[in-house]
Amino acid sequence: MTGIDDLPVRDELRGKSPYGAPQLDVPVRLNTNENPYPLPEPLVERITERVREAARHLNRYPDRDAVELRTQLAKYLTDTSGYEVGLANVWAANGSNEVIQQLLQTFGGPGRSAIGFEPSYSMHALISRGTGTGWISGPRNDDFTIDVDAARQAIAEHRPDVVFITTPNNPTGNAVPPETVLALFEAAQAAKPSIVVVDEAYIEFSHGDSLLPLLDGRPNLVISRTMSKAFGAAGLRLGYLAAHPAVVDAVQLVRLPYHLSAVTQATALAALEHTDTLLGYVEQLKAERDRLVSELLAIGYEVTASDANFVQFGRFDDTQAVWRKILDRGVLVRDNGVPGWLRVTAGTPAENDAFLDAVRELKKEQSA
Amino acid sequence: MTGIDDLPVRDELRGKSPYGAPQLDVPVRLNTNENPYPLPEPLVERITERVREAARHLNRYPDRDAVELRTQLAKYLTDTSGYEVGLANVWAANGSNEVIQQLLQTFGGPGRSAIGFEPSYSMHALISRGTGTGWISGPRNDDFTIDVDAARQAIAEHRPDVVFITTPNNPTGNAVPPETVLALFEAAQAAKPSIVVVDEAYIEFSHGDSLLPLLDGRPNLVISRTMSKAFGAAGLRLGYLAAHPAVVDAVQLVRLPYHLSAVTQATALAALEHTDTLLGYVEQLKAERDRLVSELLAIGYEVTASDANFVQFGRFDDTQAVWRKILDRGVLVRDNGVPGWLRVTAGTPAENDAFLDAVRELKKEQSA
Repeated sequence: MTGIDDLPVRDELRGKSPYGAPQLDVPVRLNTNENPYPLPEPLVERITERVREAARHLNRYPDRDAVELRTQLAKYLTDTSGYEVGLANVWAANGSNEVIQQLLQTFGGPGRSAIGFEPSYSMHALISRGTGTGWISGPRNDDFTIDVDAARQAIAEHRPDVVFITTPNNPTGNAVPPETVLALFEAAQAAKPSIVVVDEAYIEFSHGDSLLPLLDGRPNLVISRTMSKAFGAAGLRLGYLAAHPAVVDAVQLVRLPYHLSAVTQATALAALEHTDTLLGYVEQLKAERDRLVSELLAIGYEVTASDANFVQFGRFDDTQAVWRKILDRGVLVRDNGVPGWLRVTAGTPAENDAFLDAVRELKKEQSA
Repeated sequence: MTGIDDLPVRDELRGKSPYGAPQLDVPVRLNTNENPYPLPEPLVERITERVREAARHLNRYPDRDAVELRTQLAKYLTDTSGYEVGLANVWAANGSNEVIQQLLQTFGGPGRSAIGFEPSYSMHALISRGTGTGWISGPRNDDFTIDVDAARQAIAEHRPDVVFITTPNNPTGNAVPPETVLALFEAAQAAKPSIVVVDEAYIEFSHGDSLLPLLDGRPNLVISRTMSKAFGAAGLRLGYLAAHPAVVDAVQLVRLPYHLSAVTQATALAALEHTDTLLGYVEQLKAERDRLVSELLAIGYEVTASDANFVQFGRFDDTQAVWRKILDRGVLVRDNGVPGWLRVTAGTPAENDAFLDAVRELKKEQSA
């Protein structure tokens, strides 16, 4: 039987497996940082209205430049950060993964390199490899904060073309202080200069503010965002970035023409009309996230301070075994490969209770 | 003012412009090979029903493997070609451009090369460059057919990793005979072996049959398709491929996870339910395409035999000037950079009449 290795695939793909969390049919799924709240019914209706209208012109190519959508995303960013951005500052694609891929095709690629401070969002490394960009694994402290001096040193040594800083960080949950981001940005400019991508996928759940105002006067800084989490729209695949207009012009040199479908644009625009409602859910999730942190601590687990919609907890000698035991109790959490730690997404109060019951039992078993 | 060249973009992007036809507001747009028929209203309603259902779960990631959609695409291919393919043979992405990008990330990339026989679909070259794949411009005869011996020689000389054969070819319109495809496939296997991608974006408009049956026993052959043209859904961005299951497994190593949104999957599934109606429009467009060919010949133009939903006509000493004169008459056609030739999409009968009136007048002017 012919398999992948019988095909003339690139050498570095041989023996690899596709990325992705196991999709298991489990009562309580807290493994992929999805928002547990379905879109409210009035928004569902608004989506169908907008999609109906888009479907009537579906024989035509979509707006290649997604002008209306980018304008509304800019308005959302301005309204929530107080820092004014406009159409020319914003670019959108099919998920922040595609945004990152376009950035790496523009500023990374063969003969160039990117750095991230690991553990962090593993797609940064995977998309770097997928675009032929060399990957440098930068250091983190044992408590998952970034050691500024060590990070600076890594940047000075490797002179990467692209620097990824995820804040709040995934899968650890902790935010990166603005002064650390600034220090790394300066180090990256001194070393190369390079593009610094601040991945703010989870920023709406943070106790702190977006770093959008740092864009001022820094054309080599990019903030990436997504509608998957705060907007409760993981199924929509809508990622975007804010940056200097020159960055937006540059990614258009590599974007596939008409990459963003008319139905995607219509659906995203409908969701943006319901921003206030959706940000209300975010407040509920933040409270639940904080409850998860305090309960986990009360039960006796270690927890990484979280500014995201998930919590990293530990520590375990046999992480995989604990993951399995929690799954046996009907709750799916995520083993991101961080030794000793697991990650749980903040779900609905009932889902979180189910999770807390499971890990409470587990603790009792261990103590027994 | 900071511009692209002030950013650390890749050297090969400097001075480049984004790909894309001018989007002008003109009464008759026959420039991007769109299907002129809006989706029928019952299909629009079915799309809204399916999207409403998808929107209710939009907080969850979409089916990463798009199982239902790929199953229905396989059924469509089987029904229309008589050659049986199943879920395991089919892969889908955001437009055939993304399918091609994934194929090049898998089988091309840095240190590898791809060949196409030009003029052909220009995105093959552009996506090759975007993925770091070396591009080889293979030859065509003056009448835009492929010279099998010259093509074989180019393959033997350059030993490309990926071979693109577009049939019917865009922008010229002519189909490639199956025996030519087979000869080039054999040459490519002897030289490397390499992956041969047959781009059948316009196959539904052809006088001939799909080359799907050639997949039998050829794991290095890939057929790429799109719903943009025959399904009248350019706005949907749904491309797909049929190949040996090992190819489908291989592209999953490079695909961005959850690349295909839940609304895209829902919309495509609705369109596939209405295949018979949409293929009825294809028959009308084929008749209009044939009418364009015979009328253009009758007026005194040269025409390339067309198996697509567009017609290449000429010849002109100053192609750009003729393009402009047709535009002045309210009809937008496409200058694809083929010296002496322009391309017109088959529109509605009224749109085609407007185009024919314009070029008839032009001919009279020139004769006067």
